[in-house]
Order: sequence, then structure tokens, then C-alpha cells
Amino acid sequence: MIYTSQTLEKAIATFAKLPSIGRKSAQRLVYFLLRQNQEYIDEFIAVLSNLKSNIKLCKSCYNYSDDDICPICVSNSRNSKIICVVEEPKDLFAIEKTNEFRGVYHVLHGLINPIGGINASDLKIKELIERVSSAEEVILALSPSVEGEVTSQYIAKLIKPLNIKVTRIASGLPVGSSLEWTDEATLSRALEGRITL
Amino acid sequence: MIYTSQTLEKAIATFAKLPSIGRKSAQRLVYFLLRQNQEYIDEFIAVLSNLKSNIKLCKSCYNYSDDDICPICVSNSRNSKIICVVEEPKDLFAIEKTNEFRGVYHVLHGLINPIGGINASDLKIKELIERVSSAEEVILALSPSVEGEVTSQYIAKLIKPLNIKVTRIASGLPVGSSLEWTDEATLSRALEGRITL
Repeated sequence: MIYTSQTLEKAIATFAKLPSIGRKSAQRLVYFLLRQNQEYIDEFIAVLSNLKSNIKLCKSCYNYSDDDICPICVSNSRNSKIICVVEEPKDLFAIEKTNEFRGVYHVLHGLINPIGGINASDLKIKELIERVSSAEEVILALSPSVEGEVTSQYIAKLIKPLNIKVTRIASGLPVGSSLEWTDEATLSRALEGRITL
Repeated sequence: MIYTSQTLEKAIATFAKLPSIGRKSAQRLVYFLLRQNQEYIDEFIAVLSNLKSNIKLCKSCYNYSDDDICPICVSNSRNSKIICVVEEPKDLFAIEKTNEFRGVYHVLHGLINPIGGINASDLKIKELIERVSSAEEVILALSPSVEGEVTSQYIAKLIKPLNIKVTRIASGLPVGSSLEWTDEATLSRALEGRITL
């Protein structure tokens, strides 16, 4: 026995189940919460209670949303003819933060990964094909990994016959990086994707 | 607007208030929770609900406990005549993990820090003096910081007149460290505290 309170032990074990939270971090978080007042903890309880019940997937783009259709899909200022395909909602938020993209999104909720048992039918690919008919361009913004490549190729193969433009975001050197320390794969991609000035 | 769900935004903001959890980590934790089933989240809610209501301070040593008196203070196998004074419950757990100490504890819940507005009366020092009369030895296991030193000196001054032995845990080179890279303060402490072989 190390902990003198079963409740404390249980709380630490529960927090330690979270990703990237080890036992020491869990201990620190629980001690922190113990020192807060009841309102602080009640706020946490409220947030957790609302999480699953309030948040659903937008019926158009499958992004997290409080309503049936998310604010991006519903907005008049967005061009619904340009659909950017992303893996997860967090990728959507990363693109939104650039303030560059004025089209709409489609969240796949994963990438094709046969080894991990994730097939095309597990993702929102069918739903993408269904809504794509009125689109002018589909931008594939998936990670430049093996799974990302496979998924991009798979989707491109389905959409191209519909006479819709399919593009992929560029792969190359990150801004601020140095050529010397760039790996060969990235460098050859950057050469391949060179643009005329 | 970056997030398309107010509930999501609120959840991330709440998690980001935790110590050492930034906005990115908060986002990852909330997304992780969103992907779990309801039972997983209910377990969290239960843990948080029980936290403040179930955990109290042991009336003897002021460690966290489910009962009025903690299992360490109640145990027959512990020597209640040796009291180890620590700053926080986490320090108690650190010492328990060594499996070396068979006495009991006293948790101060802080260190004297006049600049931070923490005086002796804010800590469990009065309570220590009250229970110390039957003790044979009081071991001060506080951090070797300025606040730790001040608190140690303060407590020693109060207990020594009662004819009770007061000791302090040793300061010196950590096991596995090298003399070359040890700072001067630690090295001079190690010299000072040298023991006869």
C-alpha cells in the first residue's frame, strides 16, 4: 500500500489512462484538483457530462458540431463547391487556423490501414462520393504517410471518373527548415513538386 | 471561429486550465474522450464527484485519507514515536516508496514563505507541536530550498526545548551523479555532512 486513500488511488489510476498522462502526471493533476474548490470540479463534471450528449457529427461534413449541420457547412461565405478532405477534425481546425481556405470540408475519421484493420468502408468515403457530384474541386489534405497516400489514391480513383478536379496539398520543405537537414523523401517530393516562378 | 462546436470549445478550454496541459494537449485529451464510450466518461465523472467528498485529511498526520485516521497512523506495525515531517502528501508517498521508513508522518501542507504570503500559522505546525510530546525523534524531510530551510529551522526551534531529538534528511550528491557536474552548494553540503566509514 502506498496511497492512504482508495479514492485517491482510483482517481490517479483513472487519470493515468488518458493518452500521454503517466502516473506521475496523473498524481499531479489529481492533487491539483483536490486543492481547487467544488465549483472548479463541478465545471469539469459538467463538461464531461455534456461531451457525448451535446457533440454530434455534422450530417454534411462529419465534423464535430452542436447542431445537425456545422457552422462551416451552413455559412454563406464558404464556397461549397470546393471540398477539402481531412483525416480528423483536428486537421480541419489546423487548416482553419491558416485563414486561407474558404471552401468546405469532409472529415474521413481515419485513413485506410489494412494492417490496422481499417478499410475504406470504415471511413466516411461513401458519404464523400455521395455529396461530391456538385463540387468543382476536391482537395486531399491527408498526412504524407503510407496510409495517407493509399487513402488519397483510393479516393482519387473514385472521384476522377466523375469529371471533378482532384488535387493534393503539396509536400516539401517546411518553412524555416534548412535543405541540409531535410530527409531524402521530403527533398525528392519537393523537387517533384517544383513550381515555375 | 475555429471550433465548430461550443461544447467542444468549452471542454478544451476547461482541460487547458489544468497544470502543464496546454491548448494542444487539452485538444488531444478531449478528442480522445470523444472517441471513448459513455462508460469511460462516466467513470471519470464518478471519480471527480467522489474526489472532494470522499477524501479528507487524516486527523493525526493530515495526509489524504478516506477515513478520519489514515491507514499509516492506525497501523500497529508503524513506530508512532518517530515522526517524519513532509511538505505535501506526494512527498509522503515518495518516502513510502523507498520501503525504508517504518515511523509515521506529519504533512505540513506547504512551507513557510513570507514573500508568497505563507506564514507558519497557515501550515499544520501547531498540530505537529501538539502531537509531538510522546515522540522520540522528529525527522524533517523538507526540500533543500530556502523555504524548506526556513521551515526546518522554525520547527527545530520549537521542538528542541521539549527535549525531543530533531534530525534533518541528508543533503548531498544524488546516487549515480558525478562530482564534476555537481553544483557548489550541493558539494559543500555533501562535504559538511560527511560521515565516518
